[in-house]
Amino acid sequence: MMLLLFLFSIILYWHNVKSHYAFETKFIEVPLDHFSFTTNKTFKLRYLVNRSFHVKGGPVFIYTGNEGDITMFAQNTGFMFDIAPEFNALVVFAEHRYYGKSLPFGNESYSSPAKLGYLTSSQALADFVYLIEYLRQYYLGTVISYDTYPFIAFGGSYGGMLAAWLRMKYPNSVLGAIASSAPIWFFDNMTPCETFYDIITNVFGHFGTDRCNKTIQMSWEAIRNVTKTKQGKKFLSHSWNMCNELKAATDVDKLLDWLSNIYVNLAMVNYPYPTTFIVPLPAYPVKIFCDKLNSFKFDDNKGLVSALGKALEVYTNYTGKIKCININITSEDIGEYAWDYQACIELIMPMCSTKKDMFEVLPWNFQKYSDDCFKRFGVHSSEPHWPILEYGGKNLRYFSNIVFSNGMMDPWSCGGVLYNISATVLAVNITDGAHHSDLRGSDPADTNYVVEARKFHIRAIRKWLNIN
Amino acid sequence: MMLLLFLFSIILYWHNVKSHYAFETKFIEVPLDHFSFTTNKTFKLRYLVNRSFHVKGGPVFIYTGNEGDITMFAQNTGFMFDIAPEFNALVVFAEHRYYGKSLPFGNESYSSPAKLGYLTSSQALADFVYLIEYLRQYYLGTVISYDTYPFIAFGGSYGGMLAAWLRMKYPNSVLGAIASSAPIWFFDNMTPCETFYDIITNVFGHFGTDRCNKTIQMSWEAIRNVTKTKQGKKFLSHSWNMCNELKAATDVDKLLDWLSNIYVNLAMVNYPYPTTFIVPLPAYPVKIFCDKLNSFKFDDNKGLVSALGKALEVYTNYTGKIKCININITSEDIGEYAWDYQACIELIMPMCSTKKDMFEVLPWNFQKYSDDCFKRFGVHSSEPHWPILEYGGKNLRYFSNIVFSNGMMDPWSCGGVLYNISATVLAVNITDGAHHSDLRGSDPADTNYVVEARKFHIRAIRKWLNIN
Repeated sequence: MMLLLFLFSIILYWHNVKSHYAFETKFIEVPLDHFSFTTNKTFKLRYLVNRSFHVKGGPVFIYTGNEGDITMFAQNTGFMFDIAPEFNALVVFAEHRYYGKSLPFGNESYSSPAKLGYLTSSQALADFVYLIEYLRQYYLGTVISYDTYPFIAFGGSYGGMLAAWLRMKYPNSVLGAIASSAPIWFFDNMTPCETFYDIITNVFGHFGTDRCNKTIQMSWEAIRNVTKTKQGKKFLSHSWNMCNELKAATDVDKLLDWLSNIYVNLAMVNYPYPTTFIVPLPAYPVKIFCDKLNSFKFDDNKGLVSALGKALEVYTNYTGKIKCININITSEDIGEYAWDYQACIELIMPMCSTKKDMFEVLPWNFQKYSDDCFKRFGVHSSEPHWPILEYGGKNLRYFSNIVFSNGMMDPWSCGGVLYNISATVLAVNITDGAHHSDLRGSDPADTNYVVEARKFHIRAIRKWLNIN
Repeated sequence: MMLLLFLFSIILYWHNVKSHYAFETKFIEVPLDHFSFTTNKTFKLRYLVNRSFHVKGGPVFIYTGNEGDITMFAQNTGFMFDIAPEFNALVVFAEHRYYGKSLPFGNESYSSPAKLGYLTSSQALADFVYLIEYLRQYYLGTVISYDTYPFIAFGGSYGGMLAAWLRMKYPNSVLGAIASSAPIWFFDNMTPCETFYDIITNVFGHFGTDRCNKTIQMSWEAIRNVTKTKQGKKFLSHSWNMCNELKAATDVDKLLDWLSNIYVNLAMVNYPYPTTFIVPLPAYPVKIFCDKLNSFKFDDNKGLVSALGKALEVYTNYTGKIKCININITSEDIGEYAWDYQACIELIMPMCSTKKDMFEVLPWNFQKYSDDCFKRFGVHSSEPHWPILEYGGKNLRYFSNIVFSNGMMDPWSCGGVLYNISATVLAVNITDGAHHSDLRGSDPADTNYVVEARKFHIRAIRKWLNIN
């Protein structure tokens, strides 16, 4: 169920697209495998360059691309552009292998475990290191000089993990990293698995009301009860204006997954201004959704189900132009399959819901998770502890020059670094922030907390660069 | 030519074997590929454990095995045992994949580039990380506690590189590293390629005399002149008591390679006490060799060649029991092929000799080097700059808790870290030291410099462990 969450976070980037973020599109040939020599195959990795703010000697701001087409990130990480002039920075966005146009085997890239197997965070980091060195030596003309043209990494969500990990594993490639909403502690047993859904429940309680919360909590059983019969399935399908009528029990499971993801998404993008998402959303969509849900009265399960269906239109049909609801939403532009693979095999983030949150109870079961992954990808999940070994787990005291920022209203913050580790590994908690709000371009409706977080980032970067 | 140097350094370990270094032999199942998922194959990595000095709560001293059978290292790194009682330490020696008994594909491990391709330093480091975590969690019973049972890495030569790199890339796996004679700056253009032979020339000048030096310098042309004719080849073969007579011009090239390696080895093992090597050697063998060479008078090339042949007996027949000299010396117990592969493909250390040193002039030619590697292994050398990207090059200021020790009379010191980088990345230069003398067990003939270096290590480890 949760594999899609990160994807949705990408899709969110589509809101607030500013077409004046212009780029040159470039490619660099990188080795397919940086850590073994069983193949000497290379492939073309895409990156985007904007020179318009760059003054010779200025730093390079590099976005460490995550699970999607890099042009999306380039058009939706306004903060880097907002501050580039102040730093005379060259702005670069590096695409993550197996996404967008950076497909090692072209259309065949996802066709087999043997081809997909090179999709790992370690390989992606090494790609970035390769690109950075190329830019430094050939593009900027500073042959193996590690002090001229310092590189600063930026990233949000999984891209934030990569920015932090890049600094941790390759401190000579980037001078520092701004890692926004990067849940690097969401692995193995570092974070209690129920926290993710706890936060969403709190967000709905805070921006909506307790009543909203409780209605949602009751709704799971109500939906299951109503849809037990064929007639009930028909009733819900019509009431919710679904494109395809629910038929099998598995359709109901799929519906509940879809519903669960909507709540997750609403919490993640609960921004203080309207956003254009897969579907457009109002400012503070959680509040609007809950207000609507609370406005209905109902006496029985059917009534609850009808009311919920109407409230969901805030999310599913805010413009009023949608003809019917398709619960098989996937985005063709997103590397959904590739991300699911990563979350299945390497980056396993345990999640569970309990009676204390507003979601249907769903325990974490690694064996089941791994078995499902095997069914889908033909590969079993790796040792869930591996990301801790590879990236150091909770002990970050030996690393330096990283800012971890988190919106405290973002469910992903539960896996984030929320306290200062040292004088150079710092945490910024954005009290009212959603998912990586701080990396977005400035907006008049930004809260003070977000504005202050951006100022914090600027001060950190100035310190890394020795600018007084 | 130089591919064999590291191998010889391993063979040196055989001297001074103390049979009381007893171990339990164990194996751990590790993934063949830690950084991709094209295969889920695992293999058994060997490690050795000595519990005799261990007291609960004491640290773990772990030797990061290099290019050879781990039992050799275990029997020849006496320093770890000498200090283990003082620290209540558990002593572990981890074997490097593709050496000794840690062969991922058994006897087939070297049979093809596809099988041999997983032999890289990155994969070896990840094996060690895997082993350390296993020992911590299951062997010592400290579930994901990073402060109890701290691990300290030790290594000499390539093993020293691995010890340092382990701390650099995985600072949560080991608290600190004693990296002895670790030429981590011997890659790409970090060290002038002629320095290696310069140092050997200086060692022969210092322990021998300038005359010894000049005789060797003249000898290359003398040998080439003498062996131009069939008769001359015969003369040298008999004069040097060779098992197989020189026939082709390539035989002469091979002879000069062999000769060159002898000088390298003599400098590396110029210890102040007798050692048992492939062949036994006296204390300060460089001095003994030069004294003998200087004792002969000669007027022409033939005379020089004869004199050299006699002097070489210090190295080739010190016991007087060798029947004839075989210039195809290889050791069956050493992972020679595997190390040549590593030096060819990944860990390319550029070396050259010039008119200023005592060796025959041999420029560094990467293209030729790579072509020769391809002929032998079916794989081309990778980008020579890669080790710099992967392991940080000369900029070590972001790392911590490493002691780099080097014997200044060891040719490998030219690629070592010879100055303090920070308060926690420190250099110890052993003025009169040979190749990782400090990791050997104490000997009455040890010079003060070596004794002081060992004290330095102890102080560093105590500091890392917070022992006053």
